Amino acid sequence: MISKKMHEQVQNSSVIRAMFEEGKRLAGIYGAENVFDFSLGNPNVEPPEDVKRAILEIVNDENSIGIHAYMNNSGYEEVRAAIAKSLNEKHGTVFTENNIIMTVGAAGGLNIILKTLLNPTDEVITFAPFFGEYRSYVKNYEGELVVISPNTIDFQPNLEEFEKKITLNTKAVIINSPNNPTGVIYSEDTIIKLSEILREKQKEFGTDIYLISDEPYRELAYDQAEVPYISKYYANTIVGYSFSKSLSLPGERIGYLVIPDQAADYENIISAANIANRILGFVNAPALFQRVIAKCLDAKVDLEAYNRNRELLYKGLLSFGYQCIKPEGAFYMFVKSPIKNDAEFCSLSNKKNILIVPGSAFGCPGYVRIAYCVAYETIKNALPGFKALIEELK
Amino acid sequence: MISKKMHEQVQNSSVIRAMFEEGKRLAGIYGAENVFDFSLGNPNVEPPEDVKRAILEIVNDENSIGIHAYMNNSGYEEVRAAIAKSLNEKHGTVFTENNIIMTVGAAGGLNIILKTLLNPTDEVITFAPFFGEYRSYVKNYEGELVVISPNTIDFQPNLEEFEKKITLNTKAVIINSPNNPTGVIYSEDTIIKLSEILREKQKEFGTDIYLISDEPYRELAYDQAEVPYISKYYANTIVGYSFSKSLSLPGERIGYLVIPDQAADYENIISAANIANRILGFVNAPALFQRVIAKCLDAKVDLEAYNRNRELLYKGLLSFGYQCIKPEGAFYMFVKSPIKNDAEFCSLSNKKNILIVPGSAFGCPGYVRIAYCVAYETIKNALPGFKALIEELK
Repeated sequence: MISKKMHEQVQNSSVIRAMFEEGKRLAGIYGAENVFDFSLGNPNVEPPEDVKRAILEIVNDENSIGIHAYMNNSGYEEVRAAIAKSLNEKHGTVFTENNIIMTVGAAGGLNIILKTLLNPTDEVITFAPFFGEYRSYVKNYEGELVVISPNTIDFQPNLEEFEKKITLNTKAVIINSPNNPTGVIYSEDTIIKLSEILREKQKEFGTDIYLISDEPYRELAYDQAEVPYISKYYANTIVGYSFSKSLSLPGERIGYLVIPDQAADYENIISAANIANRILGFVNAPALFQRVIAKCLDAKVDLEAYNRNRELLYKGLLSFGYQCIKPEGAFYMFVKSPIKNDAEFCSLSNKKNILIVPGSAFGCPGYVRIAYCVAYETIKNALPGFKALIEELK
Repeated sequence: MISKKMHEQVQNSSVIRAMFEEGKRLAGIYGAENVFDFSLGNPNVEPPEDVKRAILEIVNDENSIGIHAYMNNSGYEEVRAAIAKSLNEKHGTVFTENNIIMTVGAAGGLNIILKTLLNPTDEVITFAPFFGEYRSYVKNYEGELVVISPNTIDFQPNLEEFEKKITLNTKAVIINSPNNPTGVIYSEDTIIKLSEILREKQKEFGTDIYLISDEPYRELAYDQAEVPYISKYYANTIVGYSFSKSLSLPGERIGYLVIPDQAADYENIISAANIANRILGFVNAPALFQRVIAKCLDAKVDLEAYNRNRELLYKGLLSFGYQCIKPEGAFYMFVKSPIKNDAEFCSLSNKKNILIVPGSAFGCPGYVRIAYCVAYETIKNALPGFKALIEELK
């Protein structure tokens, strides 16, 4: 009785979420401390103290009348202005509140912008490995996701194949840097070349191609690595941002879209995105957390905690003979599976109570993703298992 | 460059929201105190004190680790269990946490269930006058909204026409009681007859027809009026609930779906609805407010404030010669336009700084909706304008 589309979705239900459930099941049997769950990007680092302080300030304010009421679909004007100002200071951009729409996380923002842009059969390009949800988001609006095969040398986008796969039907390109699942930051050189290709193709086809930059991991960059701000390189950029990771607030569903003035059809995109926000049922980003994040724009989670995890896991895995490149951002490590079949390797690791996700779920078979946003002890205690795994396979 | 569908939406952008903007414009010119904005269902009554207390308790709890993290897409198990228990106590139902999915308001819930159920060209029936957003929600999933014409005698659903319009393609029926825009409560007699018709038609066509009950106004019923709990009358019921009005939290986007065990294809609907929650970009209902509402299930806004407004407005309008039936719930009055053209009447009222919405926006021309969730003084000060309006039209 459910729809055909959803029937398919139920059949192929998210591998990652299935892992999450498997983790809970194993924890029930062996005890949570004996299960090493690296399957989900659920930050273990607590939000900075500023978040609690902001909540208390707002709620205890004697003038707090109407703080839970409806506001414009785009969000509070003063919150959007504060975000624009903060972006301008960090990146030398010139945004105003009119370029910002508050959204129910980045997932909400991506759905809004895809609903705004896509006609049926429009193509949206992304680069493997990629966050598997993009496939569903694009399908929601009857677009076609076109996947560029992975460059497994350094996991920068494969621009040669990209150039060939842009067609008259290409409406948008989604990038994600720092990247889930690789932790790679797309270099400035990559962004310059990618933008150049897009400009040429726009000219060749007489179309507008939007570059949608999905940036939940922007603030999680190690060793002071630079994450280029995409709108400075390409006019038709739309940014989807989330505070889920930068402030460890994934359950609160708070983020925003940036739609720069110079994006083609700017006025209509803004109007349509506001309507899409409403009719998709989001209506507006949660009210209290709009005000909370406005008070926390300079705050950041303890990145050093993730960095310690990164170092421990990376050194450990390398010493056992695993192959992977060192992540520059986010909290994922994308490791080459010691056997060809990544799903089989994940099943073997499950037997050691280690939960990881096959690269196939990200369009990159032969690899596995390890989410290291977990307790340091979890990594420490899981390392013997990782060691045993690869040794048994030799 | 925006999609064709969204281009249409931008052209016909919500009348109600346009009013909201017009109100802000007029307030800028004449001062907020001289503009009588009855256009939007934005509760003016503050949330009960329990809400603030709950927020402080949760945030100040020393064991508040992970309160902003991801949880299952369906929401916290203990919150869902608390809701099930509360419903069972109030309505004699037998729900468990497995019947509840937490959603981003009722608008989020309706989108989730329509995505779950609808194949393209499936028909969804609703009764005029109806909340205009249903049209967009159904269109989001390529369904066809079939509107039953209004019964302007008492605004109970027109069941004769309903029976005739049910076809093999009817997948769902949306009802909304207490009703936006009339304030009418669908009587038990109505619900019994409507259920009977549905059961017969299910048998006749060999189909399942889901009755979706959109219930944001359930707790706003005056004079101890009973609002029948629909799942007790019809097995294939799905309830969409919101705390937006019962606790005055519309900006926080918190509600839930009830999917009873006896609904046909229950298991698949639950699985699919959880996936729809995720892939539509909601992911989960806001974390903090899930815990907040769980602590406030017995709390309620000050209904007497709305009741005072209702009495003042109803008596005032009637004494001037307006025609309308007295609302039994919600905070809307649906008044017959003194001239045939309801949009023209709204334009005339605008000139007296009175903002109201044409009935055409609810599929019922010739009427206007007055949202009386405003300050008592606003109604008092607007009454002379309402009087002058009808006198000038005589």
